[in-house]
Amino acid sequence: MAENVAQKLIGSHLESGTLEPGNEIGVRIDQTLTQDATGTLVMLELEALGIDRIRTETSVQYVDHNLLQTDEKNPEDHMFLRSAAQRFGLWFSPAGNGVSHPVHQSRFGKPGATLIGSDSHTCAAGALGMLAIGVGGLEIAMSMVGEPLYISAPQIMGVELTGTLPPWVSAKDVILEMLRRHGVKGGVGKIIEYYGEGLKDLTAMDRHVIANMGAELGATATVFPADDAVRDFLEASDRGEDFTRIEADEGAQYDLHDAIDLSQLEPLIAAPSSPGNVRPVREAAGEDVFQVVIGSSANPGLRDFAVVAEALEGRRIHEQISLDVNPTSREILADLIAGGWLTSLVGSGARIHQSGCMGCIGMGQAPAVGRNSLRTMPRNFPGRSGTDEDAVWLCSPETAVAAALTGKITDPRELGIEYPQVKLPEKFSANRSMLVPPLPLEEARQVELVKGSNISSLPDFDPLPEDIDLEIMLKVGDNVSTDEIMPAGSRVLPYRSNIPKISEFVYIQVDPSYAERAAGHAGGHAIIGGENYGQGSSREHAVIAPRYLGLRIVVAKSLARIHWQNLANFGVLALEFSDENDYESLSQGDVLEFRGLRDQLTDGRTVSAEVGRRQFEFRHTLSPRQVEMVLAGGRIAQRAQQEAARKI
Amino acid sequence: MAENVAQKLIGSHLESGTLEPGNEIGVRIDQTLTQDATGTLVMLELEALGIDRIRTETSVQYVDHNLLQTDEKNPEDHMFLRSAAQRFGLWFSPAGNGVSHPVHQSRFGKPGATLIGSDSHTCAAGALGMLAIGVGGLEIAMSMVGEPLYISAPQIMGVELTGTLPPWVSAKDVILEMLRRHGVKGGVGKIIEYYGEGLKDLTAMDRHVIANMGAELGATATVFPADDAVRDFLEASDRGEDFTRIEADEGAQYDLHDAIDLSQLEPLIAAPSSPGNVRPVREAAGEDVFQVVIGSSANPGLRDFAVVAEALEGRRIHEQISLDVNPTSREILADLIAGGWLTSLVGSGARIHQSGCMGCIGMGQAPAVGRNSLRTMPRNFPGRSGTDEDAVWLCSPETAVAAALTGKITDPRELGIEYPQVKLPEKFSANRSMLVPPLPLEEARQVELVKGSNISSLPDFDPLPEDIDLEIMLKVGDNVSTDEIMPAGSRVLPYRSNIPKISEFVYIQVDPSYAERAAGHAGGHAIIGGENYGQGSSREHAVIAPRYLGLRIVVAKSLARIHWQNLANFGVLALEFSDENDYESLSQGDVLEFRGLRDQLTDGRTVSAEVGRRQFEFRHTLSPRQVEMVLAGGRIAQRAQQEAARKI
Repeated sequence: MAENVAQKLIGSHLESGTLEPGNEIGVRIDQTLTQDATGTLVMLELEALGIDRIRTETSVQYVDHNLLQTDEKNPEDHMFLRSAAQRFGLWFSPAGNGVSHPVHQSRFGKPGATLIGSDSHTCAAGALGMLAIGVGGLEIAMSMVGEPLYISAPQIMGVELTGTLPPWVSAKDVILEMLRRHGVKGGVGKIIEYYGEGLKDLTAMDRHVIANMGAELGATATVFPADDAVRDFLEASDRGEDFTRIEADEGAQYDLHDAIDLSQLEPLIAAPSSPGNVRPVREAAGEDVFQVVIGSSANPGLRDFAVVAEALEGRRIHEQISLDVNPTSREILADLIAGGWLTSLVGSGARIHQSGCMGCIGMGQAPAVGRNSLRTMPRNFPGRSGTDEDAVWLCSPETAVAAALTGKITDPRELGIEYPQVKLPEKFSANRSMLVPPLPLEEARQVELVKGSNISSLPDFDPLPEDIDLEIMLKVGDNVSTDEIMPAGSRVLPYRSNIPKISEFVYIQVDPSYAERAAGHAGGHAIIGGENYGQGSSREHAVIAPRYLGLRIVVAKSLARIHWQNLANFGVLALEFSDENDYESLSQGDVLEFRGLRDQLTDGRTVSAEVGRRQFEFRHTLSPRQVEMVLAGGRIAQRAQQEAARKI
Repeated sequence: MAENVAQKLIGSHLESGTLEPGNEIGVRIDQTLTQDATGTLVMLELEALGIDRIRTETSVQYVDHNLLQTDEKNPEDHMFLRSAAQRFGLWFSPAGNGVSHPVHQSRFGKPGATLIGSDSHTCAAGALGMLAIGVGGLEIAMSMVGEPLYISAPQIMGVELTGTLPPWVSAKDVILEMLRRHGVKGGVGKIIEYYGEGLKDLTAMDRHVIANMGAELGATATVFPADDAVRDFLEASDRGEDFTRIEADEGAQYDLHDAIDLSQLEPLIAAPSSPGNVRPVREAAGEDVFQVVIGSSANPGLRDFAVVAEALEGRRIHEQISLDVNPTSREILADLIAGGWLTSLVGSGARIHQSGCMGCIGMGQAPAVGRNSLRTMPRNFPGRSGTDEDAVWLCSPETAVAAALTGKITDPRELGIEYPQVKLPEKFSANRSMLVPPLPLEEARQVELVKGSNISSLPDFDPLPEDIDLEIMLKVGDNVSTDEIMPAGSRVLPYRSNIPKISEFVYIQVDPSYAERAAGHAGGHAIIGGENYGQGSSREHAVIAPRYLGLRIVVAKSLARIHWQNLANFGVLALEFSDENDYESLSQGDVLEFRGLRDQLTDGRTVSAEVGRRQFEFRHTLSPRQVEMVLAGGRIAQRAQQEAARKI
């Protein structure tokens, strides 16, 4: 049968289940990626699981999030991660090497391989013809011990690209167009596969831009073929030998269809405060801008900086603008110097920051209240920048540099300057000297984990009771992101390895009283959510921390994939309203009375509860494997119970 | 009469008093410099004083401290400072332009001129043959309205330099040798003037290193002649026309004498946690190092980075090292790129950070607890790095790069590599496009101050009562720095424009209960200090914030100059023990009963108080002008009283 690229990638790694959409399938995992904000937990999970050596082909621990080091917590996390990587057999990429996704694509990405990462933008590696999925940390840990990744078999949406991009329009506008059409839930339950003649106009790093922000569509993964562009990229990265051609078979089919004529695209921008608020730049033109930030995994390519540099060459940024530039990686920085681009950026008035995620994850670069900040980043959820009442817009490097020059949102086609034709080097810089390879096993066994005072063990979670009365501690609206559940930013991120401490910040922007109320309420509680509950970042802290505060059940109109999976992994039951109208009938303070939960979950897809005398019905989409896990109190508790049972 | 350089500089600007050491003299001020951490207060003071246009020749407001922007406070301070600079007629140097002292030396420094700055390292400009003094913000504000600077006439210490520096020894070792000989109080009450044949071996930026850390000696100022080296520097900076030759007359005398044979120096290092803990590097060799930081106003020259880059060229830093590089300024960064040095740094594994003070002022780059961090910075007071139990060492770029290569404290002469002969460009980069010049008066008058929510007005302070009983709220030891009184760092610095909020952090590392106890205690309180109380940074917050909490009198064995002046400016009476043994007799909780303070202060240099029935005698060194100011409640309160009196 003629297969598309997604089917080939899944088929070659399928360990259980069949590819019918909605079925749970098990997929063998070749590579993993962890970053420092989520990786400390993964390493603690490996320790809790009693691992000697990981079993994946390639696993890399990056340090790219917590780079500010305002006190000892960040550097002590870095030392812990280095020691854990060496102890368990991972590669280690220290602070300064750059953002995980593009570095991974350059140094480790391999057509045909599967990759999971404890970062929602892991999907970026789909650019190389990989099956790359962002997941919770515990899934990473389990894949390292040899378990497959369990996911719901997705629908595959084929998007045919035709034509070529006009001047001042680039890959970011392609994914913004997808977000304009489909919104932040448009990709839920889907793999998006791009194909067609238009691909010729997109380099592997351009495709990274599109695959990266597949996360913003809620997609399980984004897939591109491994074609000549991928070969060229790997050869320029000194890794031609890692290339395998993978393309859809003639006559391959897709479950869903869309098409984009690249030549018809215009510069687009996502207005505050959702990546889904997309409109043409010209419709927002004229708004005052105070900050422009270039960088992050959403526009990480050398081209994305070079086009800005060339537009700025010999010019000066507008005087009210702070132009913040975050070179993606050590190698991109080296190439920016070599190409003369860094000189143009510095000369024009840019501030050059260290390589890493920086303002994308609220580590510095916060804007003033209500003052427009244009960023080439992937997300603009409220407060993610570090400023509570921020006004962050997402756009291409072209649109960003136009604002840097004029001080206003400006359609770059109106700049009146020639569109820079960036000529990339034949070979990219390939300095791998700072990437630390895994230690040989015997040496690895000698490594002691270096735990600073801020690194606490994982809390133990008890099984979900059969009968439980849960007060609704919080009711929230649609599209609540994990940034709102568990904020990042410089105040909170340093506590990523300290669950008791970080739990004090859960929902702090939404309801500052939640954490204290929840912690003070014995017996657990429930949260009511709207559509697409838990969208955005993959952080499992958004489950572990509320679970630590007593969260047992979430009821929402719908749930985002990674968060839904994380809830199950840590023993929180995720339910959806059978009748969405019931959302209106439940209020904070109501008590949901569940009876015979094990029977209800085991017997079917619906679960009922009473509030007062009124009965409510909810659905769940958990697999039998997940039901057992939730009832056991999560995957780690379940494994401990299994091991204890084995010993008896 | 034959004059030395210091006498010429003072003589040409003397407005009142005579040059007898200890006398109060008034000095006309040509230039001022403010940075963002102290400048917001200065601008609020200008506003409170009702200024229309400043009267200094050149005043520059820099943004170099608060660059992390973890929330809206930093960027809103920057916007406020820009608006205030434009309103009052200052130059404005936005974030990204670099560290105030070296940028000022490059762009504005002028042999023969006087400069005061609300930053203790302002003295660095002495490198150009200027009289440059770090003072409190209020002195800056008063100089801007046309008042002279009042200081105690200093003794002048001549230091003759002979010989030439051996390989791997540089200017930093000269000032570390001075600190080794004289300690952190060795310069108190003195201007240090360097002269002699050895000067030929020191460029103007090398002299900046030595003049800068004159602050660590406690010196009022450091002075170098304006000779060929200064001319060369100004010409390379495209400002040859600003050069005037100023050298000591044949037969000029000094009050005090010292001499250094440069050829006899060896690499030195200041161990944790004082710049005075100096020893030869070889005596500390072998200690494990985890972080090396290159940057700050203490080693800001292109050479200081280039020598590191050349030692690293083609090599890799040790794998346990984080090598953090903070290019001094936009121009130094441009020259590092042009010279190929940035490529070497990036290639060797360095992290390149934005231009600015960064870790020097605890804005990021904090080390792990107890893990050695070697820095080319000027200060290593406890906790200044952002980590409470830090282990920070101060050294030259040569000693720093040796540790970066080996992972241990290493005498750079033992590296076994050839000492790099750095060849500087004939012309430095001279990109002034981001320096915003003062607006014309009529335009300036139209500018509205942009005040974010974190910018609060100055509190009003009442006059010092005649009779007052003051509980001793805190007793501290010797050499307490203003970093301990009013910490900097990323948690506290953002509140520099918000006195009520920042006062919660006063003495937080020394006694976390002080601020709350003081605020809760009506009627004011006293603090007892040891030797050299209030050394270090010029921050007037170290006076205003405790004054806001009720501090009325400080009694110490001795006081550091700038802090002593700041105390008077804000109406806090600074006293010294007549008999130092009395320090032991006073305890926290004792109540000092002062009677007839006005008479005591006006009539003489001693003040007595009783504790219980026991009488204590203290001295003061305030001028009559200062006595009036203290009694009035400080300079701003005094001015308001004078204006009110004029209106009656």
